[in-house]
Amino acid sequence: MKKILVIGAGLSSSYLIKYLLANAKKENWEITIADQSIELAKQKIGKAKNATALAFNITNETERKAAIKNTDLVVSLLPPTLHILAAKECIAYKKHLVTASYVSDEMKSLDEAAKKADVLFLNEIGLDPGIDHLSAMEMIHKIEDKKGEIISFKSFCGGLIAPEFDNNPWNYKFTWNPRNVVLAGQATAKYLENGLLKFIPPNRIFSQTETVNVVNYGAFESYANRDSLGYIEPYGLQNAKTVLRGTLRKKGFSQSWNLLVKLGLTDDSYTLTNNKNLTYRSLVTSFISGANEKNVEEKFCQFFDLSKNSKDFKRIKWLGLFENKTIELNNATPAQILQQLLQQKWSLENSDLDMIVMKHEIEYSINNKKHKANSTLIVKGEDKTYTAMSKTVGLPMAIATKLILQNKIKARGVVIPITQEFYQPILHELAKNGIQFIVE
Amino acid sequence: MKKILVIGAGLSSSYLIKYLLANAKKENWEITIADQSIELAKQKIGKAKNATALAFNITNETERKAAIKNTDLVVSLLPPTLHILAAKECIAYKKHLVTASYVSDEMKSLDEAAKKADVLFLNEIGLDPGIDHLSAMEMIHKIEDKKGEIISFKSFCGGLIAPEFDNNPWNYKFTWNPRNVVLAGQATAKYLENGLLKFIPPNRIFSQTETVNVVNYGAFESYANRDSLGYIEPYGLQNAKTVLRGTLRKKGFSQSWNLLVKLGLTDDSYTLTNNKNLTYRSLVTSFISGANEKNVEEKFCQFFDLSKNSKDFKRIKWLGLFENKTIELNNATPAQILQQLLQQKWSLENSDLDMIVMKHEIEYSINNKKHKANSTLIVKGEDKTYTAMSKTVGLPMAIATKLILQNKIKARGVVIPITQEFYQPILHELAKNGIQFIVE
Repeated sequence: MKKILVIGAGLSSSYLIKYLLANAKKENWEITIADQSIELAKQKIGKAKNATALAFNITNETERKAAIKNTDLVVSLLPPTLHILAAKECIAYKKHLVTASYVSDEMKSLDEAAKKADVLFLNEIGLDPGIDHLSAMEMIHKIEDKKGEIISFKSFCGGLIAPEFDNNPWNYKFTWNPRNVVLAGQATAKYLENGLLKFIPPNRIFSQTETVNVVNYGAFESYANRDSLGYIEPYGLQNAKTVLRGTLRKKGFSQSWNLLVKLGLTDDSYTLTNNKNLTYRSLVTSFISGANEKNVEEKFCQFFDLSKNSKDFKRIKWLGLFENKTIELNNATPAQILQQLLQQKWSLENSDLDMIVMKHEIEYSINNKKHKANSTLIVKGEDKTYTAMSKTVGLPMAIATKLILQNKIKARGVVIPITQEFYQPILHELAKNGIQFIVE
Repeated sequence: MKKILVIGAGLSSSYLIKYLLANAKKENWEITIADQSIELAKQKIGKAKNATALAFNITNETERKAAIKNTDLVVSLLPPTLHILAAKECIAYKKHLVTASYVSDEMKSLDEAAKKADVLFLNEIGLDPGIDHLSAMEMIHKIEDKKGEIISFKSFCGGLIAPEFDNNPWNYKFTWNPRNVVLAGQATAKYLENGLLKFIPPNRIFSQTETVNVVNYGAFESYANRDSLGYIEPYGLQNAKTVLRGTLRKKGFSQSWNLLVKLGLTDDSYTLTNNKNLTYRSLVTSFISGANEKNVEEKFCQFFDLSKNSKDFKRIKWLGLFENKTIELNNATPAQILQQLLQQKWSLENSDLDMIVMKHEIEYSINNKKHKANSTLIVKGEDKTYTAMSKTVGLPMAIATKLILQNKIKARGVVIPITQEFYQPILHELAKNGIQFIVE
């Protein structure tokens, strides 16, 4: 009998918990679902056996110690900054830990202690980071096995609306954390291009996109992620001339989004005070010199050199930014106001399904002959609970959990899943669950 | 006999100390010049009598208490964040305090205690803030005395190179803190325009300039300051439709500076690591996708849609940004690298004189008839020590000090100089010292 403690029963846990419950009997697991809301935990368990709901607050030391002492492995779905609380108890009580978050400096500093305790702290085992590591490393190792040398590595990922439900001019709906979407691109992006270090400052991130074609799904575009350089060392790409990671949107999105950036609506650094009677129309007027509430559409088009028939203008207008509607937020930043509006406009309807698109584009040479390897993943959601995002984040965590408890993983310490012992079995089982890359 | 303690004997103190020393005998003052470097303090005193140099560290409590206890008035030329250390002792020992800095929240919180101690904490009595307050309030009160109603208030100020010594394509040299110049415009500017609140986000500050003509000195341009709205209440401009404050440069500067902003060279949020062999040319190359060290000039022009004969391109080139010269800074931000380069290119030569330009443009109505009032100040430096900046910052502080010690100022508490008891005598004496506004 092995015990698993899952901390967090929110939206992203749906698929993870479903998998764990489905395998509990066969694997002889006893599962505890811990959440601040015991109702939420109970709901996720439903009528399943081998599972208990636990009312739990990670910041309560007594609760934390008791729960972690009494398990074999902790799966933490906590906000990234709180993982460390669980991690320290996992050192003390010698328990494995699984998270889908980036390795923080604090987490990294526990590497030696985790090795000493003979436990594995597996991080970055969700979608992005997660499935990107697994699939990229499988491709990279295959090329290296053929004595290929990688020249260019590009990797793109986006959480989008499935095309069957794509019914707005932005071709986008929120399928994940809206705040992250609104605040994207606010730091300089760094990548490698033809052997040269390249930077894109925030004011140009959404105007320097590249086209990414996806078989059967048409043209997407990618804007550069903050740090592509950090992947060079773990992926062994020291000889590559180009290393770029980007976020996918449907073609045209970024150019229109850039208008919101230029306007100033993604600014999160100051709050608008006394804005009880502020409307979206007056807010936009505030950002255009010379505009007043009568002529704001004309001034907007003049300012950005747009026609009223342009897709860009239609997208902005569709959001309701020119409407005389009161903004129901006080003392909020422009970014918070924009987010609240977008959450109304870009929300998933009940029947909507989301879609994950991931694509790796690799160029390599063997004996000076150039080759290409492309690999694409498309995953669609099953319903509003079992979304593509929840599936692609939760399943890798769940499968890794199983492998660890089966003693099939030898790694110890603070680890990300870039070695064969992770990608081979996990990609294999993901494929059986419909998460399969198409190799072009 | 009255005692004055001047804390700080750096560049900006030259004119202040000169004035205090010149008036010491007549006013029966005993002056202490305190600085971490007693040599600097001694140098400023020269052969003058009635003055003593003091080796002094504001963070040393014993030194601080002893010096402040033993004076009647403290003039603090400390960095703005350190004024508060002097201010708290001034409360304890009931001494007046004079600074040229903006009133911080911490300083503001001492208002009641200062009133209770029956002392004056006079802040914002330099150039900008300082002379701007004095001259604007005199104009505003004159208009109000005529029953005029102010419709529009615009105020501009710039520290520049005098035209006789203006010999570079930017028409600019550093005459004050270079770091502030490099980091200018990185927060959203807020102002009032035709009755509407207006914002300019950082990405547009240097492209939304307005022309300011100065008699005999030609066309300047102004980019908006961070907060023009904060002047509405103290200046009594609640009925004005337009309130704007801006920073002056010679025409064309901002458009070229904007290229540096767009390129990413004013970014102070991350450091470039391992850049021992980085050259200015390779740094610029890093900021342009598709550029390499052979074609960077062409790609730069393509990227910004410029001709190589344009003034903009010539200004960038003149800075040496395309030169294969090693950058002598490691682990520095782009902004720090840019600043170091500009300090070489925009430095004052020994014979160079600086120039202050300040202009207020007011529109007002009397009985529905519109009127204009313009007022312009030009001050040129005398030499490298007695610069226009040192004169216009130091003299108002020095004159205010005299008035306070003569018991001619009734105000108590934490105050800025916006009332007649300040502007009338101080502007009068400034005029006698060559700091005189020209009314158009």
